[in-house]
Amino acid sequence: MTGVKEILARYSKELDPYIEKFLPPERPDNLMAATVQYPRAGGKRMRPAMVLAAAGAVGGNKEKAIPLAVAIEYIHNFTLIHDDYMDGDEKRRGMTTIHIGYGGPTAILAGDALFARAFQVMAELDVPDDVLREVLKVTTKAVWDLARGQQMDVNNENGEEVTMDEYIETIRLKTSVLFAAGAAGGALIGGADEGTVKAVHEYAMLLGVAFQMFDDVLGLIGDPVKLGKSVGNDLRKGKSTVMVTHALKNIKDEKIMKEFRSVLGKIDASEEEIQKARKILENAGSVKFALDMAEDYTKKAIGKLDRLNDTEDKEFMKALAEYAMTRDV
Amino acid sequence: MTGVKEILARYSKELDPYIEKFLPPERPDNLMAATVQYPRAGGKRMRPAMVLAAAGAVGGNKEKAIPLAVAIEYIHNFTLIHDDYMDGDEKRRGMTTIHIGYGGPTAILAGDALFARAFQVMAELDVPDDVLREVLKVTTKAVWDLARGQQMDVNNENGEEVTMDEYIETIRLKTSVLFAAGAAGGALIGGADEGTVKAVHEYAMLLGVAFQMFDDVLGLIGDPVKLGKSVGNDLRKGKSTVMVTHALKNIKDEKIMKEFRSVLGKIDASEEEIQKARKILENAGSVKFALDMAEDYTKKAIGKLDRLNDTEDKEFMKALAEYAMTRDV
Repeated sequence: MTGVKEILARYSKELDPYIEKFLPPERPDNLMAATVQYPRAGGKRMRPAMVLAAAGAVGGNKEKAIPLAVAIEYIHNFTLIHDDYMDGDEKRRGMTTIHIGYGGPTAILAGDALFARAFQVMAELDVPDDVLREVLKVTTKAVWDLARGQQMDVNNENGEEVTMDEYIETIRLKTSVLFAAGAAGGALIGGADEGTVKAVHEYAMLLGVAFQMFDDVLGLIGDPVKLGKSVGNDLRKGKSTVMVTHALKNIKDEKIMKEFRSVLGKIDASEEEIQKARKILENAGSVKFALDMAEDYTKKAIGKLDRLNDTEDKEFMKALAEYAMTRDV
Repeated sequence: MTGVKEILARYSKELDPYIEKFLPPERPDNLMAATVQYPRAGGKRMRPAMVLAAAGAVGGNKEKAIPLAVAIEYIHNFTLIHDDYMDGDEKRRGMTTIHIGYGGPTAILAGDALFARAFQVMAELDVPDDVLREVLKVTTKAVWDLARGQQMDVNNENGEEVTMDEYIETIRLKTSVLFAAGAAGGALIGGADEGTVKAVHEYAMLLGVAFQMFDDVLGLIGDPVKLGKSVGNDLRKGKSTVMVTHALKNIKDEKIMKEFRSVLGKIDASEEEIQKARKILENAGSVKFALDMAEDYTKKAIGKLDRLNDTEDKEFMKALAEYAMTRDV
């Protein structure tokens, strides 16, 4: 089949007019400009593509799922705006973040506005009312969990060391649930039975964990130019990623441990110090450990699709799971 | 009939267990504590009371509307948390605000979480699915408008002078729409026809304007002890309330105008300066002007209820409109 990137680009092109259409100009101008910036800027559009693919893979009409795909992308963008503000990040995809460009209050409001618009769009879904209710249940639960996951992440950055299980719970909440709400919502709109909706939901939960683990790896060894941001910030923030948790448990040499700990949580660590810590993580097998774990999650995710008929959409969903941990951006 | 305050207290007592019930303990602890603080702290509970009264006034079962009443109160509290953070307010109802008590990130997330929970609660409403869809449309539109209104308010504080019409548009968006979504939602759940839902919606829109205008007056001439906050902050922020807009148009004496302008927008204005500006507003007839206007809106609001049968709930809705501009807190 065509490569994942090409299919994502095709979905993206198909969705762009809808992403604009549901955010027509309105007053006040500064709020609207702040609200449309991230949705318009694009990104990989993995979440909305998954909504449409899930609707198709269960034998449904993908067009009916377009508003949900847009809504899921708005929710994703709303969380990015708020997260960037609370993390103090100044750049995203090479552009100025909302709180830097428009100020903190407008960043909060633009996020809130996108959140509201997402559910306005859902309220107009051309699906039976009982399907709308089910879609609403899974998406609202996801947003609730996103807030919990982000709070755990914030707590985690404040230097609390967490166990591997706790970290995985955090990324299930802060990343997986939105993928899963989109996939399950797409399947619901596509007319899937309860068991299939559940399988598709689990597929996306597992994929989300792999995606976030790989994201953590990329954030350490990725290409800063392609990523549009500097690498090593998780280390600077002292975040207990899978790699860090593995390293803290497995580095036996005291001197090396001391060296690693001297960089971990050092907010102004130099590029050189980050590269030193990265080497330590690689030598301790921590990067490989995270990649193996991500691969394991990917395989499990793909296994959940067994009950679906073989279709192009199913193939794409499988490929998407692999892409989640092979992408370079 | 029993006084409005007593009925509000009764509704409040009835609702309190539900406000707790829909926010059971969950991890992480700090997010949950921040999320429940405002809903638990109470307040006048005017919005949820209006939801229940509207359901009853159209002949419906008030109990069915309880989850919507709770959801509207959560939405109200979510906006308070975010607004307090962006306004830099340190106290609400005599308590420390969320961003002061838990930090900015947790204030953002607690607001987001309450927003999400509001719609989770709505998704479980025991009403026909098509009614849920209509309730969803009116409430999501309201939250979208709340963000627009708050942004206009923020812009307004940044020193832009606005016309009376623009100010009224701002308070329709930042205050009225949530009252109106609650009232219309209650009427929908109560089984009202389209015309009645519209009338109840208009009633609450008009009431909301009167409520906010009176709130602006209270914020100037109210009792700081009862209000739980200091007075005159709108003047310090240079906000174009109805009173200020009226004064800037009607003060003819140049010296007095100069004196007034020297306080308007002076963020560190002393208590004495505020009292001087307040006297100027009173002498210019600006306070009376705002009160007359609020009274006019109240009368129009009550007029919208003509098509409802005479019931205790209708009486309460009328009394609530009067209370909106006679309360002392």
